[in-house]
Amino acid sequence: MIHRNESLTDMIAALAAGTQTPLSLAKQSLARAAQHADLNAFAALDAGIVMAQAKAANQRRARGEALSPIDGIPIAIKDNYLTKDYPTTACSNAKPLEPTGQDATIVANLRAAGAVIFGKTNMHEWAFGATNTTSNIGPTRNPHNIDHITGGSSGGSGAAVAGGIVSAAFGSDTGGSIRIPSSACGIYGFKPSYGRASRHGVLPLSWSLDAPGPMATSLQDIVHLLPYVLGADPADHSTSGAGTFNEAPAPNTIKVLNLSGPGLERATDVDEAINTALLRSKTDVTQASLSNIDQYLASWEAILHCEASSYHQALMAQEPAGFSSVTRAHLEAGEQIGATELLVAQKIRAQLMPALMNDMPDWNVLVLPTLPVTAPKHGDGWQEFGGRRVTTQDSMTWFCWLGNLAGLPCLTIPVGKSHAGLPIGMMLMGKPSGDEELLAAAKVIDQNIKKAG
Amino acid sequence: MIHRNESLTDMIAALAAGTQTPLSLAKQSLARAAQHADLNAFAALDAGIVMAQAKAANQRRARGEALSPIDGIPIAIKDNYLTKDYPTTACSNAKPLEPTGQDATIVANLRAAGAVIFGKTNMHEWAFGATNTTSNIGPTRNPHNIDHITGGSSGGSGAAVAGGIVSAAFGSDTGGSIRIPSSACGIYGFKPSYGRASRHGVLPLSWSLDAPGPMATSLQDIVHLLPYVLGADPADHSTSGAGTFNEAPAPNTIKVLNLSGPGLERATDVDEAINTALLRSKTDVTQASLSNIDQYLASWEAILHCEASSYHQALMAQEPAGFSSVTRAHLEAGEQIGATELLVAQKIRAQLMPALMNDMPDWNVLVLPTLPVTAPKHGDGWQEFGGRRVTTQDSMTWFCWLGNLAGLPCLTIPVGKSHAGLPIGMMLMGKPSGDEELLAAAKVIDQNIKKAG
Repeated sequence: MIHRNESLTDMIAALAAGTQTPLSLAKQSLARAAQHADLNAFAALDAGIVMAQAKAANQRRARGEALSPIDGIPIAIKDNYLTKDYPTTACSNAKPLEPTGQDATIVANLRAAGAVIFGKTNMHEWAFGATNTTSNIGPTRNPHNIDHITGGSSGGSGAAVAGGIVSAAFGSDTGGSIRIPSSACGIYGFKPSYGRASRHGVLPLSWSLDAPGPMATSLQDIVHLLPYVLGADPADHSTSGAGTFNEAPAPNTIKVLNLSGPGLERATDVDEAINTALLRSKTDVTQASLSNIDQYLASWEAILHCEASSYHQALMAQEPAGFSSVTRAHLEAGEQIGATELLVAQKIRAQLMPALMNDMPDWNVLVLPTLPVTAPKHGDGWQEFGGRRVTTQDSMTWFCWLGNLAGLPCLTIPVGKSHAGLPIGMMLMGKPSGDEELLAAAKVIDQNIKKAG
Repeated sequence: MIHRNESLTDMIAALAAGTQTPLSLAKQSLARAAQHADLNAFAALDAGIVMAQAKAANQRRARGEALSPIDGIPIAIKDNYLTKDYPTTACSNAKPLEPTGQDATIVANLRAAGAVIFGKTNMHEWAFGATNTTSNIGPTRNPHNIDHITGGSSGGSGAAVAGGIVSAAFGSDTGGSIRIPSSACGIYGFKPSYGRASRHGVLPLSWSLDAPGPMATSLQDIVHLLPYVLGADPADHSTSGAGTFNEAPAPNTIKVLNLSGPGLERATDVDEAINTALLRSKTDVTQASLSNIDQYLASWEAILHCEASSYHQALMAQEPAGFSSVTRAHLEAGEQIGATELLVAQKIRAQLMPALMNDMPDWNVLVLPTLPVTAPKHGDGWQEFGGRRVTTQDSMTWFCWLGNLAGLPCLTIPVGKSHAGLPIGMMLMGKPSGDEELLAAAKVIDQNIKKAG
C-alpha cells in the first residue's frame, strides 16, 4: 500500500532541477488519490481546481518566477480549515460552510507561496474524537493495513501523506489530532506551541487547546513548511507575541526526560520501540514521572468539553442533526458543567507548566510514546495495555493531551514497526515557544536512530 | 469632621526637617483614631503594635539611617491584606485568619521601607459589596457627614484618610472598591493596571479583576507610594511582565474622551461638577459613548460571581455562618452559573479592550464621574439619577467596573462638592500598563482644576 513517495524536500529539489513540474506532480497526486480511493482520505477533491493551480504554477516556474521553493507542490488540507475554493464540512452532517473567498491564514500563506491546495481531507466529525471512525463520509483506512484505523482527528491528512498521495498535509491538534494519525500512519507530525501558529479560519474544537500544524514524511519537510505556519497574525490574538520561524542550530547536548509511571502505561512492543530508539538516539536520557496525571487529564477534559460546547451551542440548538449522537452527547455533557468546575480546571491547568518546568530534572526534550498501542483494528472498541483497559478513543489521546494542556511544541517521529507491521511513533515535546529548538534536537535524534537502525 | 491633616508628602518633608518624628506622627494618628471612633474606620488597631514600629523608626531616623522617605509614616491597611501582626477577617463572621508571619507583598514592601503599619481598616464583608454597610463590625461613616455612607469595599481606608487619622491607606478594587470610597470621602484613589501590582497576600474577591492600590490626599502622595506597589512579584504570576514605577514626564497635550450615553447616566450636580472640572482642566476634550454597556456589565457580573464562588466554595460548605445572608446569596448564585455562560462572558470581556483602544477617537485619558451620585445616606436602599432607579449597591459600581473588566489603570480625584457639602470625584482611566502616563496627565489636570477653582 505504501508508495516510495518523494518527500516534500525531494519535490523541491526535483522542481528546481526540472525533473518534475507542477503539472507532473499534480497529475501524479491525482492518479494516486484515485488509486488509493479505498483509504477514504478525501472529503473533497476536484481535479479541475487542482489542475488550474498547477498550470498557474507551471507557468510561473517556466518564466523563472517561482513564488517560493514549494511553488507547485500539492498540499492537502484538513476539512476544518476554511478554503476559498472548497466548502468546509468538518465531516459532519451539518449544512456545509460554502466557500466565501476566505482562506484560513495558513492556507492563505501556502497559497501565496504557490502551493497547490490539494483537496480537503477526511477527519473525525468536528474534530471531536481521535479515531477518525466517526465521519459523514465514513472512516479513513490506514495505508499500512486498511483493516486498521488511522486515528484522528486529522486521519485523512495522515492517510494522504502515508499513502503517497501528497508529500505533506495539514491537520489540527487539540489532544493529539495531528500526532495520533501521524504516529499510526508512520509519518512525522508537528503541533506548534500554543500561540505560535494562527488558528484563524480553522474551525475551533477548544480554542485554548487547538493548534494547527503540518504532517509530512521527514523533519526537513516540516522545516520547509514552518515559514508559512509560525508567526503573528492580527486575526488570532493568541499569536500576538509569536515570532516567525527561525531555524535553530543543532544542540551540543540533548537532555531527554523519558516519562513513565501511573497514567502513562503503554503496550510492551511500543515500550520496547521507544527504549530502543532512545538508546540509539545518543542523548542524555533520564527517567522521570509526573504526579497527578489524573487531575491534569480531568482538567483537559473539562476545558475541552466546556469550550467545545460553547462554540457549538448555537448550531446545536438550531441544527441538532448536524451532529452525530456521540458528538451530541459530548456537547450536552459540556453544557452541564458548572462555571466553578471550569475555574478549578483552569487553575489545575495553570499548575502544569510550573510542574514541568520547575519540578523536574533539567531537560530539553520530554519523551513519551505518541500512542500506547499501534493502530487499532476497525471495530475494536477497547484497547488493553500495561494493565489498563480503556476505550479505543481514550487510548488515542492517552499521552497527547498533555502537550495541549501545557501548550508545548510537540513532534511525533516514526521509530519502528510492530511485528504486525504497524508503525510506532515517539513523541518529543519541547519548551513553550521553543519550536525551533525542539526541531533541531529532533533532527539529531532522528538521524542517530536512522544511522543505528 | 475633617482635619486639615498633613498629606503624606507634608509628612515626608516634616520628618526630613525634624519638625515631626515617627513617634509624634504615631501619637497624632492614635489620638485622631480615638477622636474619630464614630467613623468606625478600623477593624483592628493596637497602640502597642503601632508604637513599637514607631519607636524603631524613631531610632533609625535618630541614627540618620532612615530606610526610605516614608520611614516612620503611619499607613493603614484594609482588612483583606495579610499582615504578620494582625489577624485578617475581611470583616466577616468567619473564623479570622490568625497572623502566620506572612505579610501581603505590598505590606512587606511598605514595612521594608519603614512605614508604620497602622491597623486594619473596616471593609465591606469579603469585599463583596460596595456600600461598606455590610461588615461584622458595623458600617463605616463618612467624615464629611456621618449620616452618609463611605461606599466600599475599602470604606475604612477612605474614612481613615479623609478623617485625618492617617495620610494614606491601602485598599483593593474589583469593581471600584478603592475609587468608590475615595470619591465619596473626597480623597485620591488609585487602582493600578491589572498585572502591575502584586495581589499576593490580598484575599481575592475575583482574581482576574482584583487590583490593590493606595488612597491618599494628593496625587504626589500616590507617587510617593507607588515604588512599593508596582512591579513583578514571583508570588503573583499575573505580574510577571510588570515594570517597577518609573515616573513619566508631564505630557504636552492631553486628549480626554468624556464618556456618556446609555448606561452612563449620572445625577445633575455630579454631571455639572465633571463638566466644570473638564473646562478648567485645559485639556482637549471630546465627547464619546461606548456601545453595548449592558453586555459588558453582564460579563463583569458573571466573571465576578463565578470567581468569587469558586474562591469561597470550600469555606461556604464548611462554615456557612461565616457569610452574611446577602453574600451567601451572591455566592450561591455564582455556583449556579454554567461554564458555557462564563466562557461567553470571557469572550465579551475580550472585546472590551479593542472597543476602547481601536473603535474610539484617539485618547490619553478616559473620563467618567467616579460615582453617579454623592455619598448616599445610611439606610437608603435606592438611588435615582438621570432617569434611572437602581439599588444603592448598583449605584456605587455604576461606572467603576469598566476599569476592572478592561484592566486599565484608574484614578479618582476630588473635583468639588455638592450643595449638601458632599464630595464629588472624577474618574480618569489610562491605557493598559500606562499607570505612569495616567498619573502624569492627572497631575496636570488636577493642578489646572485647582488653579481655576
